[in-house]
Amino acid sequence: MKVIDEHRSFGGWQRRYTHHSKTCGCDMTFALYLPPAAEHDRVPVVYWLSGLTCTDENFVNKAGAQRVAAELGIAIVAPDTSPRGEDVADEDVYDLGQGAGFYVNATQSPWSTHYRMYDYVVTELPDLLADRFGEQVDLSREAIAGHSMGGHGALVIGLRNPDRFAAISAFSAICNPVAVPWGEKAFSTYLGDDRKAWAEYDASDLMAHADHGAALPPVLLEQGLADGFLEEQLKPEALEQAAEKAGASVEVRRREGYDHSYFFIATFIDEHLRFLARYMGV
Amino acid sequence: MKVIDEHRSFGGWQRRYTHHSKTCGCDMTFALYLPPAAEHDRVPVVYWLSGLTCTDENFVNKAGAQRVAAELGIAIVAPDTSPRGEDVADEDVYDLGQGAGFYVNATQSPWSTHYRMYDYVVTELPDLLADRFGEQVDLSREAIAGHSMGGHGALVIGLRNPDRFAAISAFSAICNPVAVPWGEKAFSTYLGDDRKAWAEYDASDLMAHADHGAALPPVLLEQGLADGFLEEQLKPEALEQAAEKAGASVEVRRREGYDHSYFFIATFIDEHLRFLARYMGV
Repeated sequence: MKVIDEHRSFGGWQRRYTHHSKTCGCDMTFALYLPPAAEHDRVPVVYWLSGLTCTDENFVNKAGAQRVAAELGIAIVAPDTSPRGEDVADEDVYDLGQGAGFYVNATQSPWSTHYRMYDYVVTELPDLLADRFGEQVDLSREAIAGHSMGGHGALVIGLRNPDRFAAISAFSAICNPVAVPWGEKAFSTYLGDDRKAWAEYDASDLMAHADHGAALPPVLLEQGLADGFLEEQLKPEALEQAAEKAGASVEVRRREGYDHSYFFIATFIDEHLRFLARYMGV
Repeated sequence: MKVIDEHRSFGGWQRRYTHHSKTCGCDMTFALYLPPAAEHDRVPVVYWLSGLTCTDENFVNKAGAQRVAAELGIAIVAPDTSPRGEDVADEDVYDLGQGAGFYVNATQSPWSTHYRMYDYVVTELPDLLADRFGEQVDLSREAIAGHSMGGHGALVIGLRNPDRFAAISAFSAICNPVAVPWGEKAFSTYLGDDRKAWAEYDASDLMAHADHGAALPPVLLEQGLADGFLEEQLKPEALEQAAEKAGASVEVRRREGYDHSYFFIATFIDEHLRFLARYMGV
């Protein structure tokens, strides 16, 4: 693993790392913000999963999250959104292939060779953090967040690992991917035509079928009402209905005039980090 | 003039505009943040001038300034860093030509046709704001800020127009361009070989020769000590010495470990906007 970029930021450090990922079979890049508190204490960790076309850099450059992370004493790790490289399968579209991993473990050829973002985020990346940053971060206090495709990723990973993640924050999330064009395209490509295999990557389906909804991590979902993808792709109402059925805690905040951009995220990231921090015992 | 992009941000609006500039003889783009207070009051204006290679977008996306601007009720206008277009002179280097206007009025061919960024920022852009946004912004309360080449621009424009600008904020500014490689290259190209013509664009020279230093706008200069350009290109000590000679108010804050990036700006923009706001009567 090596550092490829570093900047002092709000008294802490914003760094980028590359490493060889066994899970994805290629080099992967991720960003890590360590707050000033990490110099003398082990701090809790928030995973941030980005959306379509993003890399590890969009959130780091645009969300303005370091200020509150520094204040609260929280590390933020932001992985890339897919495997990358010349020998990694790709499509010449923005919503499939590199930059569009959808946080699943692909089962279909040629995608299954590298597209294993679920396992990468759930297992390899935390193991790497524990191994390399064990004196700075406390992997017993984790929460997860994301935007759009990454909001879907955060919901699915958080709901499938309720003992790991203290809370889930999502912005403009794809809440019911099996029922929308982005999800149908990605899941049929990566997971094949059997829709039963899709269900374990659908936040609304996972929540609706949860045995103990009250034991799931609480969810805070932020949604702009001027978001051009809201009607066709995001479906927050499906998650709300599933939560009600399961008795799970999902708060959806709908914001007049806000769109799908990082300007929206920047406006409300403060509240979301404070929400996650509360459940991580900060 | 037309809007080419807009996003709700911290209760206000972040927009991009293009318009035909008579001063520069080409279409120019600028960004404008209007805080929520501008919906019912005329708010003061901060001009942000960006550095080499930047457009109007870097500050808007990376500085995280909208949060404090919204809180304080300040508009921020961020122009592009040079004229642009196929018929605008250029060089295939990062520190000359498009993206590197240095906020001067060029006198040398072929640059003098379009490179008139001093007049654009000092006159045309404020006139346009007054004309189009007269109900949202109060042009009797202005301050100016910038980074690197734009820190130079903010210093020069603020010092040459002390009755206009209430205060000056600069990050990693080129404080003495006549004495450093970036400035010598740009000024000899845009202004010719007569170094007397350079002096009116050198903040340290302007300050050293000010008749009434105490009447100049107060300056807050932020400088990272891990900034790779500090020794060769920036020379904050020249500005400090000139300020002492002139009796002007210049506070230089040197920050251990911080570099030349927007991570540095984001860390301290809050304090700078509050500094400017105080002098604008906010």
